[in-house]
Parts: sequence; structure tokens; C-alpha cells
Amino acid sequence: MTTKPALKLTHEGALKVLSGAIAKAQEIGVPQNITVVDDGGNLLAFVRMDGAKFLSIETSKSKALSAASHRVPTGGMNPSMEIKLAIASGGRLTNAEGGLPIFIDSHCVGAIGVGSGTGAQDVEVARGGLAAIDARETAS
Amino acid sequence: MTTKPALKLTHEGALKVLSGAIAKAQEIGVPQNITVVDDGGNLLAFVRMDGAKFLSIETSKSKALSAASHRVPTGGMNPSMEIKLAIASGGRLTNAEGGLPIFIDSHCVGAIGVGSGTGAQDVEVARGGLAAIDARETAS
Amino acid sequence: MTTKPALKLTHEGALKVLSGAIAKAQEIGVPQNITVVDDGGNLLAFVRMDGAKFLSIETSKSKALSAASHRVPTGGMNPSMEIKLAIASGGRLTNAEGGLPIFIDSHCVGAIGVGSGTGAQDVEVARGGLAAIDARETAS
Amino acid sequence: MTTKPALKLTHEGALKVLSGAIAKAQEIGVPQNITVVDDGGNLLAFVRMDGAKFLSIETSKSKALSAASHRVPTGGMNPSMEIKLAIASGGRLTNAEGGLPIFIDSHCVGAIGVGSGTGAQDVEVARGGLAAIDARETAS
Repeated sequence: MTTKPALKLTHEGALKVLSGAIAKAQEIGVPQNITVVDDGGNLLAFVRMDGAKFLSIETSKSKALSAASHRVPTGGMNPSMEIKLAIASGGRLTNAEGGLPIFIDSHCVGAIGVGSGTGAQDVEVARGGLAAIDARETAS
Repeated sequence: MTTKPALKLTHEGALKVLSGAIAKAQEIGVPQNITVVDDGGNLLAFVRMDGAKFLSIETSKSKALSAASHRVPTGGMNPSMEIKLAIASGGRLTNAEGGLPIFIDSHCVGAIGVGSGTGAQDVEVARGGLAAIDARETAS
Repeated sequence: MTTKPALKLTHEGALKVLSGAIAKAQEIGVPQNITVVDDGGNLLAFVRMDGAKFLSIETSKSKALSAASHRVPTGGMNPSMEIKLAIASGGRLTNAEGGLPIFIDSHCVGAIGVGSGTGAQDVEVARGGLAAIDARETAS
Repeated sequence: MTTKPALKLTHEGALKVLSGAIAKAQEIGVPQNITVVDDGGNLLAFVRMDGAKFLSIETSKSKALSAASHRVPTGGMNPSMEIKLAIASGGRLTNAEGGLPIFIDSHCVGAIGVGSGTGAQDVEVARGGLAAIDARETAS
């Protein structure tokens, strides 16, 4: 088997994820940085909401990258490993909560990373993004 | 005088700029990377359209940064200076066409950078972004 | 709403902050690195006093960036999060004491970061900077 | 001979250089980024004037570093060498005009780098900085 079928998130889909996440962030009153990457970790869509922390531009991206790479939500890594792996990955892998893979029909088509609130708020907003396109954060 | 009044582009405004640029890119049939930064160069909004070149993620950002910093469209720099200043700025300053400052009420509130087409196509799409919020690419 | 009104710290204001911080550093006999950034984290003014540690050039900048981004004094972050967020932000976010946001009329116009003394000395000198322009370290 | 006497620029001296450069920039109506480094290239003092280009924060620093390292004004390098040396130095060496070494009693005590105007304007403002402490841009 030389090739296998895949599924790609479109920019239309990525912008819907942003919209769903923005709506949830506004609902809970926490401005956020929201990053959507594709399955290869390349940036697809981003927004920094009014009042969100500008250093969390980068943390939201690290969370999205980590969730896309590992295909699981960030935050579940063994704490004794998280710092050494973060450094070994050039600072791109993070275990901070707020990154979710985006699964559609059991394909991981990318990930969302949210940063500027507490870990729980970031996760809630990320889930708002997934809900907007009926995606899941686990393969099945 | 310790402070002076200014104007900030909202995320709502930045997303309208993205929409206007996407519409123009679809009209001319050229998928693009579109970056919107604020007046200090921090990322506000981004989208990579289906089929756009992924290395142009970075060039669209450099164009936006350059237009925000210099408050003029990219492309007008003295050719004999452009490489040395690009290097001296850590690779962030570019003279490639496709970056436009965003002026509203004579305030530079940020910039748009577009990359993946020809220079002329990138400029056309950037102008589509500005038109969506009735912004100008010059102060007056 | 495409834009919203804001306030910018002038270079005259930033230099007054430096002067106030230098005066306090001399009063307590601790030479310091003092960084002032604007609300987007771009450098506005800096001085390294005679005898200050040169590696603290960078730490004073990280402190200023962190206080400007989060709009709270550095040092209050959850200790269990500080290292992972420092790495995820590309090393720019720090929880070391000595960074204070600069609030004027409830606008965060930037931040000061001080480094080369103890945490308490750094905070004291940073407060000397804010006092020079009648600024506050909290929004209200 | 194990040691030799040296001369260090104080922070008081560096701030006078900033003041002299600011005064000249205001006289010619061109807001500037002004960097002063010591003889080892470490940052001593900096100011970004209202309206100066933020990407020139970095170019003003590259100019100051280059002038401190080579102990001659920037701009005189063989054009056929300037790009390859800029790259080989990690982007820190620049031949763009606006960097001047600071000589006092034939000691190079540091350098000033100015960026945001034309090359000629940058040099004029840098000279305003040197004049404020009766320094020279050549050893004798």
C-alpha cells in the first residue's frame, strides 16, 4: 500500500472552530488567544481576542502543536517528563492544559490551542471550538 | 506629556479584514496566507486558505510586521538597502510586496500581510482586507 | 466595533520611569537593569546602571514583557505552572519578581522590569519608576 | 604585562548620549530608536522615540554592536563583503549607516546605533549623541 486516504481541515472549517471558541470565551467572559493548526502542525487560523495576554499567543500555539503531534489533549503527560520533553522539543511540546486534537470521522485533522485563562477555562473554550464543527477530542 | 491617545484594532475588526481578504482571494482564484497584526506587531488574526503555500505563513507575517513598523506599504524600500536591513532586523523586515498598514482616522492601528501569490495578487488581496473596514493604506 | 480608544506611554514618560527607578536604586545602593516596554511588549527605554549584572539585561526584559502581557505584577503565578509556561512562551514569560504593569487612568500603557538585585529590591526599584509618573500597578 | 588600564562609559554618560541624540532627532524632526552599548556590546541605554519604527529597535542595536566591535562607523565596509559577513555573524554585523564608536581619550568605550530615519539622518542623530559627552567617532 503506497498511499492511504486522509482528511484535511479546510480554512472554512478552521474559521468555524475559531468562531465557536470565541463564542464560548465571550460566554464565560475570558478573552483568549485561539490557534488552529493542521495535522502537520502548520498554522491554519488564529485570533487574539481584545484583552487577551500577548505572551499567550505563543502558549496557545504550543498547546495546539502538542495536541496535533500527540493526538491527545494536553495536560495528561507524566509530570516527571514534561519539562525535559518540553526542552528537548525546542520548547514546542507543552503539557499545559488547553490543547485538544480535532478528530473527524476518526481522522486527526489538526488541533486547537487556547491560552490566556486558567487551564480549565482554556479547555472549555477549546471544546467550544470543536463543538462548532461536530468534532471530537478522541479518535472514537 | 506622559501619555498620548491612540486607537486599537479590535479582534472583530481584524476578523472582518480576514473576511474581506478571503473574498478577494477567492474572486481572483488565488489561495493566500493572510496575517493581521496590531500597531506593535503582535499577531491579531490569521488564516491560511486551502492550497496556500505553507512557507508563506512566515512571509505574510514579515510583510505585516514591516508595514506596521514603517507605516507604509512594503515594496518601496531602496533596493540597495533591503537585504542588509532585513538581516539587521533579525529577518523580520521585508521589502516584498503584499504588506499594507491599516489606517483608521489617521491612526495606524496595525497592518495586513498577504503571501502565496504574485506580489501584485498579494497587494490586491491585502486591499480587499482594508476595504472591508473602510480603512486606508496611507495616513491621509 | 472595529476599533477602541487606547492610551500610549510616550518616550518622555518612559524616560521619567527610568529616572525614578534609578533614583530608588541609588537610594538603596543596588545597581539595576531597568527595562520599560509598551503595552505590546516592544522596548521603549532601558538603562543598565554601573555595576549591574549583564545577564540581568534579559531577565529585566522578560519581567517587563510578562507584566505587560498579563497586566499583573510578576511573581504571583501558580508555582506548578511557571516553568511549563515559561518554556511554552519561548522563554519570554517569567514569574520572577520585579515586573510591574504601568496603569494610567485604568489603561495598561506598558510595564517596567527590574533585575540585578533580590526580588524585593527589584520590586522596590520598579515601584520607584511608577511613582515618577504617578502610575499604578493595578487597574484601579 | 598582565593587565592594562581601560575606561568604562557610565550609565550617566550613556544617558547623556541618549539625551544629545534625542535633542538632535527632535531638531531635525525624525523620531528615532537610539541604542548605546558598552565596549563589549552589552546594552547600556536605549530609547524609542514616539513614532519611531519598531523594527528599527533591532537595526539600531545591530548598528551599535557593529560600531563597537569594529571601532569604526558603520557604512564603510566593502559592499561585496557586507551580506556574507552579516550572515556569518548571526545577523549582528551590519554595514547600514547610523552606528558610531564612542572614543574618549583614545579609548573606545562603546558605541551608539541609530535607526528609523535615512542613513544620513541616523548618522546626524548619532553624532548629536557623541557631542553631548565630547566624544569622538575616531581614535584620534
